[in-house]
Amino acid sequence: MNSVGSEVTRAKTAALELASLETSVKDAALKAMAEALDKNRKTILSANAKDMSAAEEAEKKGELTYSLVKRLQVTDSKIDGMIDGINDVISLRDPVGETMSTLEMDKDLTLYQIRCPIGVIGVIFESRPDVVPQIMSLCLKSGNAVIFKGGMEAANSNEALFNILSEAAYSAGVPKGSFVLLRTREDVNTILGMDEYIDLLIPRGSNQFVKYIQSNTRIPVLGHAAGICHVYIDEYADIDKALKVSLDSKIQYPAVCNAVETLLVNSKIAEEFLPEMDSLLHENGVEIRADERCVSVMEHAVRADDEDWDTEYNDLIVSVKMVDSVKEAIDFINKHGSHHTDAIITENKANMLAFSKSVDSADVMINASTRFADGYRFGKGAEVGISTNKIHSRGPVGMEGLMIYKYILVGDGQVVKDYVGPGCRKFTHIPTDKELRF
Amino acid sequence: MNSVGSEVTRAKTAALELASLETSVKDAALKAMAEALDKNRKTILSANAKDMSAAEEAEKKGELTYSLVKRLQVTDSKIDGMIDGINDVISLRDPVGETMSTLEMDKDLTLYQIRCPIGVIGVIFESRPDVVPQIMSLCLKSGNAVIFKGGMEAANSNEALFNILSEAAYSAGVPKGSFVLLRTREDVNTILGMDEYIDLLIPRGSNQFVKYIQSNTRIPVLGHAAGICHVYIDEYADIDKALKVSLDSKIQYPAVCNAVETLLVNSKIAEEFLPEMDSLLHENGVEIRADERCVSVMEHAVRADDEDWDTEYNDLIVSVKMVDSVKEAIDFINKHGSHHTDAIITENKANMLAFSKSVDSADVMINASTRFADGYRFGKGAEVGISTNKIHSRGPVGMEGLMIYKYILVGDGQVVKDYVGPGCRKFTHIPTDKELRF
Repeated sequence: MNSVGSEVTRAKTAALELASLETSVKDAALKAMAEALDKNRKTILSANAKDMSAAEEAEKKGELTYSLVKRLQVTDSKIDGMIDGINDVISLRDPVGETMSTLEMDKDLTLYQIRCPIGVIGVIFESRPDVVPQIMSLCLKSGNAVIFKGGMEAANSNEALFNILSEAAYSAGVPKGSFVLLRTREDVNTILGMDEYIDLLIPRGSNQFVKYIQSNTRIPVLGHAAGICHVYIDEYADIDKALKVSLDSKIQYPAVCNAVETLLVNSKIAEEFLPEMDSLLHENGVEIRADERCVSVMEHAVRADDEDWDTEYNDLIVSVKMVDSVKEAIDFINKHGSHHTDAIITENKANMLAFSKSVDSADVMINASTRFADGYRFGKGAEVGISTNKIHSRGPVGMEGLMIYKYILVGDGQVVKDYVGPGCRKFTHIPTDKELRF
Repeated sequence: MNSVGSEVTRAKTAALELASLETSVKDAALKAMAEALDKNRKTILSANAKDMSAAEEAEKKGELTYSLVKRLQVTDSKIDGMIDGINDVISLRDPVGETMSTLEMDKDLTLYQIRCPIGVIGVIFESRPDVVPQIMSLCLKSGNAVIFKGGMEAANSNEALFNILSEAAYSAGVPKGSFVLLRTREDVNTILGMDEYIDLLIPRGSNQFVKYIQSNTRIPVLGHAAGICHVYIDEYADIDKALKVSLDSKIQYPAVCNAVETLLVNSKIAEEFLPEMDSLLHENGVEIRADERCVSVMEHAVRADDEDWDTEYNDLIVSVKMVDSVKEAIDFINKHGSHHTDAIITENKANMLAFSKSVDSADVMINASTRFADGYRFGKGAEVGISTNKIHSRGPVGMEGLMIYKYILVGDGQVVKDYVGPGCRKFTHIPTDKELRF
C-alpha cells in the first residue's frame, strides 16, 4: 500500500477514537487551532504569497480568472474570518451522542437511536484556502476524520494551514491521523478505490469534476454537478417582485450554482412583464436568449437554440421562454432543471402549492431569489456543500450532513425466542423521551 | 430504448404525480388492493401452485433448499397476512408534506423543511411473494414509484400478485405506471444504468448479489452485503444471561443476517462460561470452531482457522475466541465484523458505554439477542431492509428510509442583494414551529 493508502487506513482507526472523544477535548482542540492561526499569520501569509505570485503570472497569461485569484488570496482579515469560523464551530452544540428517539420495546428492553459521526469523510474542493479550517473544524466537532484535497493553485497555502491546524489539534488530544491532506491528482484516484475506509465523499468544483468522481467510485457522493435554476413568473405574479427577484437571481453573483439560468414567463403576463425585464437585464449587461414568442416583445433578445434550455451559463447570460400554465412550467423545470433551486413568483395560493409540491428540486423559492439557497442564509452556520442527491441530505448541508445514527438496544438478557410463536410475549412499542444514560 | 427502459421513464413521470397525491386517494387505493387480494385468492394460489411444483422438483434434485421452498409457498393464511400488512400501512401516518423544521429567516421570509418522497425506488428481492404487497403498499403510502424484481422461482406468483395489486391501485386513482415489475436478469442490468431515473436501489439477497449491484451502478444502494455479528461476553457478564442470549442469537434462526457468527469471551470469565456454553451449543446441534485457548475448555470444539473470523456461516456453526479486554473485543469486531449487529453481555456500566460508543455497527445490543435487529421488532411496522450504509438510513429501515425532504422558502419579493455588504439587512434566524400552509 502506498503512503496515501496507509494514511487513509490510519484515518479510519482515528475515526473510531474520534467518535467517542469528549466534547471538552474537541472544543479545547478547536480553541488551540484558532489560536495557532493567530500566532502563525506570517507563515500562512508567506505560503500564500508563493501561491499568489504563481497565480498572478497565470492570470496574466489568461490561464486563471480574476475571481479565482481573488478567492485564492489570504489576507489578515481573511485569517480573522477563519478564526471567527472556528469559534462559531466551538459554539455549535456537539451532536454526537444525542438521543434522537427512544422506544420501550418491553419492560427493561429499550431501544435508543443515537446520533453518531459517519466516520471518514473525503472532501475535494476548489482553490480556496479558507475551506481548510472550515472543513477541519466541522469534521472535528462532529467526530469525523477527514481526508482532503484542495486545488493545486492553493497548494502552499493549504499545506501551511493544514500543518498549523493539525499540529494544534493533535497537541490538544485529537487522535493522530484524524486529518489527512492529499497533494496530487493520483492521491485522489487512490482514495476513490478505498470504499472500505472512506464513508462519504464531498466533491466541490466544476460539473465535469463532480461527474468524474461520481463515475469512478463506490463511495457515496454528496454534492451537485449542475446548477440549472429557474424563475417562473406566473400569471398572478406581482410584476415588481418578479423583476426584482429575477434580476437578483441572475446578477447578484452569476458565477455560482444557485444563480438563475432560465426565466419561464406565463403568456398571460408576458406582454406586461417582458419589455420591462428586457430593459432591466440589458441595463445590467445581461445577454438575453429567448424563444420565438418572447423575442417578439424583448428588444434586446436573440433567439435561443435548443441547447440553451440545458445550459448552465454561470455568466451574465439568461434564457427566457414563454409557457401557458404553471403545469407547463413545472414539467419544463423537472425536465431541464438540475433539481437544485427553482423559484415561482405568484400571489396565487393554489399555484404556490402546485409548484412547491411538484417541482422536484432541493430548494423551492416562493417570491424570493434563488440566491438565498445557501447554508449560511439557511441558518446552518457553516456549509459542507449543496446536495442535489435524493438521499441522506438535500439542499444546503451543514454539520447534520456529517452525522448518522446507530441503534442501541439495552436489555436484561431478553431473547427473541420468547417473542415468537403462539402465546408469546408481546412488544409494548411505547415511544418515550428517555435519554440513554449508563 | 427497450420496453423496460420506457417503463422506467414512465415511472419517473408517475413518481412526480404520486408525490402530490392526496392521502385519502392513497388510502382508498390501499383498501382496494387489500380487497383485490381477498377476491382473487384462487388466481394467486393457482399461480403459486405452478411455482411450487417447479420448486419441489428442484428441491428433490437438491437445487433448492427446504427453507426457500417454504418461503415461496403462498397459503390462504399467508394471503390473510398480506391483507393485514396492507391494512397496517393504511393506519400509518402519511409522511408526505410533514413540516420537519421551520426557520424565520427575516420578517415575511420563512424557510420550511418539508418531508417528501425520494422518487423512484428499485427493489430487488429473493423468492418471497409476500414481499410484493409489502413493498407496493409502503411505496404507495410514502408517494414513491417502485420498480421491482423478485426471485425467478416466484415468477408466476409475483406476476399474479403484481397484476392484481396494480390494477386495483390504478382503478382507485393511482397514476398509471407507478409500479413496474421486471421479469429477467437482463431487465435488472438495464435499470442499473438508469441513474437519471431511479433514485435508490434496495437489493435483498445473497452477499454476492448485493455486491454485484453495488459495483455495477451509480444509483445509491441501501442494504447490506454480509451479516457477521458478534456477541462479546464481558468479564462482568451475568452467566445466565450470557448463555441465554448467545444461544438465542445463534439458533433462533441461523439462516439470517442478524444471527451471531462469533462469540468473543473475556479470559477472566472464560473458564466459568465456556464449558456450559459448550454443552448448550452441542445439545442444540451447533458446530463449534474455537481458538486455541478456548478449545482447551470446550469439549466439543474444533480448532478454528483464520478464515473463520471473517465467515458468515448462516448455519448452525459458531466460532469462539478469547479476548483479554473490552478494548480487544471492540477492535476485533470493528476489524472482522460487518457493521451490522453486535452485542455485549455485561453488568458493568463503563463497559456498556465503551462498547456502545466504539463498536461501529448499525445496531449495538446490550444484554439482548442480536436477533432483535429487525424492523418489526424495532417498532417500524414494515421493514424496507436492513442497512449497513453509513449515510441516509442505518440498521432496520422502515418507511422513513423512503423519504427525503425539500426546502421551501416563502418570501415576499426579497432579494439577496439587500442582505450583502456594509449596513445590510440581517437575518433573524429564529426557529419556529409554524407549519407550511397556503
